[in-house]
Amino acid sequence: MVIRVLGLDPGLRNTGWGIITVDGNRLRAVADGTVRSDERLSLAERLAQLYEGLDRVIADYAPHEAAVENTFVNKNPASTLKLGQARGVVLLAPARAGIPVTEYQPSLVKKAVVGTGGAAKQQMGMMVKALLPGAACDSADSADALAVAICHAHFRASAAALALAGVAR
Amino acid sequence: MVIRVLGLDPGLRNTGWGIITVDGNRLRAVADGTVRSDERLSLAERLAQLYEGLDRVIADYAPHEAAVENTFVNKNPASTLKLGQARGVVLLAPARAGIPVTEYQPSLVKKAVVGTGGAAKQQMGMMVKALLPGAACDSADSADALAVAICHAHFRASAAALALAGVAR
Repeated sequence: MVIRVLGLDPGLRNTGWGIITVDGNRLRAVADGTVRSDERLSLAERLAQLYEGLDRVIADYAPHEAAVENTFVNKNPASTLKLGQARGVVLLAPARAGIPVTEYQPSLVKKAVVGTGGAAKQQMGMMVKALLPGAACDSADSADALAVAICHAHFRASAAALALAGVAR
Repeated sequence: MVIRVLGLDPGLRNTGWGIITVDGNRLRAVADGTVRSDERLSLAERLAQLYEGLDRVIADYAPHEAAVENTFVNKNPASTLKLGQARGVVLLAPARAGIPVTEYQPSLVKKAVVGTGGAAKQQMGMMVKALLPGAACDSADSADALAVAICHAHFRASAAALALAGVAR
């Protein structure tokens, strides 16, 4: 069975998304993009923009499973709160559509894409393009979203790997 | 015109809500309660529970305006992220229903309810009950939600006061 995976990279200003198909070991890029919120609007209205944008992606591509990177907790509490607010909405959109959402540690995403947990950001983007020929990589955020989708493709079948990843449930 | 105000106190485990009516200077408690999420579920599923619960409150009471306290930013980044995720969903529910959401600094909420910005939590709860006779005050969280609704009732008409409050937009 071919599975469609939605990868997500949350942010209040830009949330990256990427859809891939997984057919056994074969991965294929379907689409990726960036949902943006208008900084002139109130926080609540910006969160609604993110939600509506992601809801449209989910309606258009009907993914079976979703994956989100566990957030690196910033030292700046105001930034952490802002990211948290966007992240809550990004997790909510697939959950309300009945799509299971798995969270992955950043080091595991790097390992799945580059083969080592300490990869540089640039290296990640190059590997995403190599693993998914034809991916648009609309933005750095959508490339990161494709990376977490690749990670999920590698680990989705393996309960042991999920436990290893310290998946937050 | 009688306005119905929804006050909200976000939290991942418990989100408090309270509905009051504002008729000139007269405030009246309509209902309050607590939306809880099941800790055994995944984070995404818990956020969906919060959203569905708030969506039901909004459908039942059709508030015209909503108010949320600006979050005290915790020193623990993991707690801040968790609260941010719940808060994003709590802001989203009224925004998607087309209800304007105003944020208030905690000190302004205290000032509106007790008359001073440095009130103790216990004092706040007593004043909420005194200002809204008959309020159920289902939980400490729903009492806090009623407090922010009272604050909004005081300041909603005053653009100057909103600027003073440093409302995050």
